[in-house]
Amino acid sequence: MRIGIVGGTGKEGAGLALRWAQAGHSIAIGSRDAERARAKAAELATQSNVVMAGLSNRDAAAQAEIVVLTLPAAGLGATLGDLREACRGKVVVSTVVPLTFGGGRLFTPPPQGSAAEEVQELLGPEARVVAAFHHIAAHELAAGDYAIDCDLLLCGADQEAKKVVGELGRGMGLRAIDVGALTNAGPLEAITAVLATINRRYKLKGSGIKITGLP
Amino acid sequence: MRIGIVGGTGKEGAGLALRWAQAGHSIAIGSRDAERARAKAAELATQSNVVMAGLSNRDAAAQAEIVVLTLPAAGLGATLGDLREACRGKVVVSTVVPLTFGGGRLFTPPPQGSAAEEVQELLGPEARVVAAFHHIAAHELAAGDYAIDCDLLLCGADQEAKKVVGELGRGMGLRAIDVGALTNAGPLEAITAVLATINRRYKLKGSGIKITGLP
Repeated sequence: MRIGIVGGTGKEGAGLALRWAQAGHSIAIGSRDAERARAKAAELATQSNVVMAGLSNRDAAAQAEIVVLTLPAAGLGATLGDLREACRGKVVVSTVVPLTFGGGRLFTPPPQGSAAEEVQELLGPEARVVAAFHHIAAHELAAGDYAIDCDLLLCGADQEAKKVVGELGRGMGLRAIDVGALTNAGPLEAITAVLATINRRYKLKGSGIKITGLP
Repeated sequence: MRIGIVGGTGKEGAGLALRWAQAGHSIAIGSRDAERARAKAAELATQSNVVMAGLSNRDAAAQAEIVVLTLPAAGLGATLGDLREACRGKVVVSTVVPLTFGGGRLFTPPPQGSAAEEVQELLGPEARVVAAFHHIAAHELAAGDYAIDCDLLLCGADQEAKKVVGELGRGMGLRAIDVGALTNAGPLEAITAVLATINRRYKLKGSGIKITGLP
């Protein structure tokens, strides 16, 4: 698949790019600054013997079959207004987690209930938004040849889109679990606050979660 | 320990009562209707060869060292106004999950951010509120001689209170994980929406969660 990673120069975006490139997908890393995206793509290529492109966020989304958002929650409005056309009819994966560090409350969702629902509102009803990959630590993704001990929990309105995203997870060895409608994105994003707190309290780099009781 | 279970005639309360009675704690099941509490205590005694009392919610809380709330989220205001004195200075465990079935959104926290923070507000600052036991399925608790495949995630402001609650979990074979301040109670309660959805979609009685990456 052709995957465009919007805001892909950060750790999470780069980690996903690396895993998916290793799995044989065609990857474009996007950034507000196309030059920065090219530099990150070149860096990953040198480190890991993979090929990927670096583009502006808009070009990365426009050329992709699947658009993946690895943006800070605070930047959604500024970035996505520009991407509505590029995302129309496409599977859009929101990995965005609305966390606020250093304040009184770590999990700070927007009025829509979750970052993913804000994404849906900003991109309009024709974007096939799936919330996923919030819990897969960047640290784990970066260690490219290493099995990730975490389930892929995902939710969204579009069953076909969820299947596509589940396959992207299975390609990196993850078990995909369907957690229903996009109205469950808040609870999924909130789990990241639980894991971030556990990482800090127990001095871990990448705690994860597994669902028990499944066959 | 003397444990009083407020709203303890439901499945979750009765399951916790059973496990803790088996572990040697002294249990009082509470209900709005003391007669109903006595009937439930007698039923559990017959089924499982344990001894426990059945009392009004207020008496169950007043005689206890640890007060456990297994109430519906919608009933907190009506019940807890009456229990403020009985809970003063005590460890109060909120297992309450603000879920709304049949509507558009399953996880529906109160304006305080979580049921546990609403409990703290209703009982006042001298109650030592710990949010815990949201994810341990009643079905699993009821199968009294069976290991529960789920972690005990808990949060709260009072470190000593969290230790006491962690011990209550370890006594039933659970690994206790400290998830920080009570402001993280919303994310913990939200996980119950994830598990409830998984139970429905995958036709399970009691999915659970395990944190990965801990030593």
